[in-house]
Amino acid sequence: MTMKNMKRENLLEKLRKEGRFVENPCNGKGICGKCKVKILSGDAGKVTETERRFLSEEELAQGIRLSCMVYPEEELEVETLQKEKKAEVLSEGYVPEFEKHTEIKKQLIHIRKPNLKDQTSMEDQLLIQLGNVEIPFSLLQHLELAEGTYTAVIWSEKSLMALEPGDQTDYLYGAAIDIGTTTVVTSLIDMMTGKEMGTASRINAQKEFGLDVLTRISYETEHPEDGKEHLQKVITDSINEMLDEVCRKTEVPGKGRIEKHDIYEITVAANCTMMHMLLGVSARSIGRAPYAPAFVKSKNLRAAEIGIRAGEGARLYCLPSVSAYIGADIVAGAYVCELRKQQKNVLFIDIGTNGEIVFSDHGRLLSCSCAAGPALEGMNISFGMRAAVGAIEDVKITEQGVKLQIIGQEEYRQEKPEGVCGSGILAVVKELRRTGLIRKDGAFIKPKDISEEDYRYPMLELDGRKRKFKMTERLRITQGDVRQVQLAKGAILSGFYALLKKAGRTMEDLDQVMIAGQFGAHLPAESLIGTGILPKEVKDKLIYVGNSSKTGAYLALMSGKAKQEMEELAHHMEYMELGATEGYERLFADCLMFPDESEITE
Amino acid sequence: MTMKNMKRENLLEKLRKEGRFVENPCNGKGICGKCKVKILSGDAGKVTETERRFLSEEELAQGIRLSCMVYPEEELEVETLQKEKKAEVLSEGYVPEFEKHTEIKKQLIHIRKPNLKDQTSMEDQLLIQLGNVEIPFSLLQHLELAEGTYTAVIWSEKSLMALEPGDQTDYLYGAAIDIGTTTVVTSLIDMMTGKEMGTASRINAQKEFGLDVLTRISYETEHPEDGKEHLQKVITDSINEMLDEVCRKTEVPGKGRIEKHDIYEITVAANCTMMHMLLGVSARSIGRAPYAPAFVKSKNLRAAEIGIRAGEGARLYCLPSVSAYIGADIVAGAYVCELRKQQKNVLFIDIGTNGEIVFSDHGRLLSCSCAAGPALEGMNISFGMRAAVGAIEDVKITEQGVKLQIIGQEEYRQEKPEGVCGSGILAVVKELRRTGLIRKDGAFIKPKDISEEDYRYPMLELDGRKRKFKMTERLRITQGDVRQVQLAKGAILSGFYALLKKAGRTMEDLDQVMIAGQFGAHLPAESLIGTGILPKEVKDKLIYVGNSSKTGAYLALMSGKAKQEMEELAHHMEYMELGATEGYERLFADCLMFPDESEITE
Repeated sequence: MTMKNMKRENLLEKLRKEGRFVENPCNGKGICGKCKVKILSGDAGKVTETERRFLSEEELAQGIRLSCMVYPEEELEVETLQKEKKAEVLSEGYVPEFEKHTEIKKQLIHIRKPNLKDQTSMEDQLLIQLGNVEIPFSLLQHLELAEGTYTAVIWSEKSLMALEPGDQTDYLYGAAIDIGTTTVVTSLIDMMTGKEMGTASRINAQKEFGLDVLTRISYETEHPEDGKEHLQKVITDSINEMLDEVCRKTEVPGKGRIEKHDIYEITVAANCTMMHMLLGVSARSIGRAPYAPAFVKSKNLRAAEIGIRAGEGARLYCLPSVSAYIGADIVAGAYVCELRKQQKNVLFIDIGTNGEIVFSDHGRLLSCSCAAGPALEGMNISFGMRAAVGAIEDVKITEQGVKLQIIGQEEYRQEKPEGVCGSGILAVVKELRRTGLIRKDGAFIKPKDISEEDYRYPMLELDGRKRKFKMTERLRITQGDVRQVQLAKGAILSGFYALLKKAGRTMEDLDQVMIAGQFGAHLPAESLIGTGILPKEVKDKLIYVGNSSKTGAYLALMSGKAKQEMEELAHHMEYMELGATEGYERLFADCLMFPDESEITE
Repeated sequence: MTMKNMKRENLLEKLRKEGRFVENPCNGKGICGKCKVKILSGDAGKVTETERRFLSEEELAQGIRLSCMVYPEEELEVETLQKEKKAEVLSEGYVPEFEKHTEIKKQLIHIRKPNLKDQTSMEDQLLIQLGNVEIPFSLLQHLELAEGTYTAVIWSEKSLMALEPGDQTDYLYGAAIDIGTTTVVTSLIDMMTGKEMGTASRINAQKEFGLDVLTRISYETEHPEDGKEHLQKVITDSINEMLDEVCRKTEVPGKGRIEKHDIYEITVAANCTMMHMLLGVSARSIGRAPYAPAFVKSKNLRAAEIGIRAGEGARLYCLPSVSAYIGADIVAGAYVCELRKQQKNVLFIDIGTNGEIVFSDHGRLLSCSCAAGPALEGMNISFGMRAAVGAIEDVKITEQGVKLQIIGQEEYRQEKPEGVCGSGILAVVKELRRTGLIRKDGAFIKPKDISEEDYRYPMLELDGRKRKFKMTERLRITQGDVRQVQLAKGAILSGFYALLKKAGRTMEDLDQVMIAGQFGAHLPAESLIGTGILPKEVKDKLIYVGNSSKTGAYLALMSGKAKQEMEELAHHMEYMELGATEGYERLFADCLMFPDESEITE
């Protein structure tokens, strides 16, 4: 094959331009022998020496050729022989259709021994085969190549990341990570197929510095010398542990265990504060008005730069945020839920310590964030606890007494619960209101206002002048607890209304409400409507989309186009600062009211 | 100024397109007030608020305006008010004309305080003013900006390197470094003017690992665990010391001392082995056939990546090489001597332990490298020493006896020299041949072949069967010493002839011979011709170009275009491996012969 021929287009290139799938790990260099096609009619020219090396006599007799070696002089009818591997999807949660196009690719190359007539440098041997990709000098620092076949790992068609001995083009792994304030989830992905190979999750190790983002930011502020570094280290340590854990469980036929050094890209979705802390960037400006973060744009760096141990030169992609309180987790969710492509009015809501709401008016995105406080996650509540074994997660108030559903126990038995988690709190407040034990303004009724025969009478307890709900022998719900929930629901509902108003839409215009997040997934419509977090009109419009933050990270891993579209989405999402919105305080006060009893279902 | 206006071309942009010089450190953002021009005729429109802030009543009355604020609607006659700072040049050595266009630039920006209505992230504030340059996340890690004026340092129009408080646009510094096997020279450059602010030089600290490149490569080979790291560390330590030293001596009006953190770019020329060792890349393949280096291309990295301490994010540019033995020092020299632009036949030669020769046939470049050995630098010679105080640097053999010129002493006195350096060795061998004390084949004549009355008789000494030249009471030149010089001169002369032959040219075609390098600068034409290092025909064609390696590094620092042109030059320079050239051994043997006495002048 002369250099002159090289410039003409070969059959492989022609087929790829037509969008037909032909496997070609060596990128048409005649090294891998995998780009076989069958010539059905037409003259494909002489069979080359290279083809004889890879094709059997039988194959040649059938008209099978290596498409990178055929330079068509006339029209050919060609049958491709491989089926494109169908992209598989995550083990759980809603995943939209996407075009697999990973930013990391592998390519076979062949290193030959230099001689006195050809002293081409090692770098130039690589460049000649790989096209003009950048070769980081750090890779040259430990480049000791002998003659033979190698697999080049290339990032974004522009930079060589690693060289693996032999043909490793079948194996390519990445990790998608969702860093929540409370929980961190790591998913190991086969980037060749999109299959999830395993997951690990941990309580966010930053909890020792505070349960919510503001407390952690305070920690950073109070420890100017090393606070930022501590916060970063615990989270990167935790990610390293999880990567170890997910790899340990794997077993790939023909390869064995996936090792950490097989992971070449990691994508991260997180709220804006978590993202700052992951990258070791000060989050202080997020913690105080006017809430201007240091950055919102996506970041693409070497994972090693922040201490994450993975493959040589492995990339770390951090999804973009919109503002201090609309983070990459929400951008991920909005992307997964295709909010920019909606042909209707959709409201997306992630309920948690911060409630984030995105309204899509036929693709135009408007967002706000509501400081709901930690009550909805079981914090700042007398007997509040996280959703774990022993936590009350549902409550029914019946004429026969209080019935509880406890995590890890059979239905509605009353075996000494340890406390009450977020969904339990919402359930009990909903029930208190449904049964009239609290008024619309959230105050407990007085025991003297109901008769002693009333089934509710024994459930009310008077402690001095303080009224409480007696949930079990030991557990009480206090007026303070109800107020905490009330503040949270007021914050979210007022955000909901303010956003609709800003968009110039009414409740009737709303076609769908999407509930995102792991926490939201545990909140039944009855609790959401019954406590008045959401208005009754949306009851039949709710759908649950699961952990869309992790799914967004997954899509970014599997597709460069998804990264780009998320960046565009983040750029086009408008943000409304509730605190700076006219009439917001009045709206918030109105939204503190609980619904009418009649509107609440069991 | 509305966004609509922004898109029209202002007067500043028009003037710059016409190639007229207008100072504008804020890049036309209306922040610095420096782009004043005088409107001689035509209507320049209304004076803006911004202009009133920067211009006095008197200036306005004279028709002076800020050119970035004027959007011409008609033809204007304009007088520019500043004179472009004239580029100054290095303190010594030949420097061709060049276009100053540094890759590092400074730009004024203004940070404003965010508020609840505008929560633009700090990163986005920067991006809006700087255009879409990349902001490395490491810079975000220590970004604590208050409201006010900052100076952005931008690399290659694409990446933000640093932010300095206040207006620092008048100050920009860089360093040009020449790493020779023997000597390292560092030059501190004012990149705004091109002026050399100071120099420092050191014996290459790698000398503890060997005096020549092959010995150092052996050291690396013999210490696989940390040899490469040691070799790298001594050289980077040494560069850090020199940067300290050159800065320490400076005093800039209005600024004070230049600090290391003011240095934003460092350019390095070096031979291929030194470049590998500087970057911590194994040079082992350079030390053995077939001499294929790990890399030859230019490298552009952060100086901190190899432990060089300079400004935040400071760049390190390593000039490109051609092959294992035609390094970036020769590329630099060939560029400085404009070999690609020559309209004649020019031979460029750098004489040292390795002699590198480049032949330019009207711009077509052909090169070779000759392993001359260390004799020409005074090594492997009985009383050899480096060029230092006490070394014999010139010798005359007269009828009145041997006259010496000793470094640090008055002319031709004989005060106990310590030894003989490279130029002295060449001089004495030339004199031995001129006076017939050695024959064409390099052998000493026998004492018995001349009469005892001959003035040369007492200069010949017989030590058993070994003949020696008695230079002083203590110092002798042995037959072995003469052989060392003979091997060196044979290597260089045969390279010279082989290159001419390969180019299809004869001696008559040669228009000029350029002698490069610090060592070459000390070799008079008489020695070069008299010892037969160069043929007698070139005697009147010699010119000396000094340390063109350092000058090349300087040009790369001052001009992005120079970098690009050097890369092209390196790419287009052909390399001939002498050892693989047919008939080379015969040619080498022929070239061992010394010239006829009659051809040698005193």
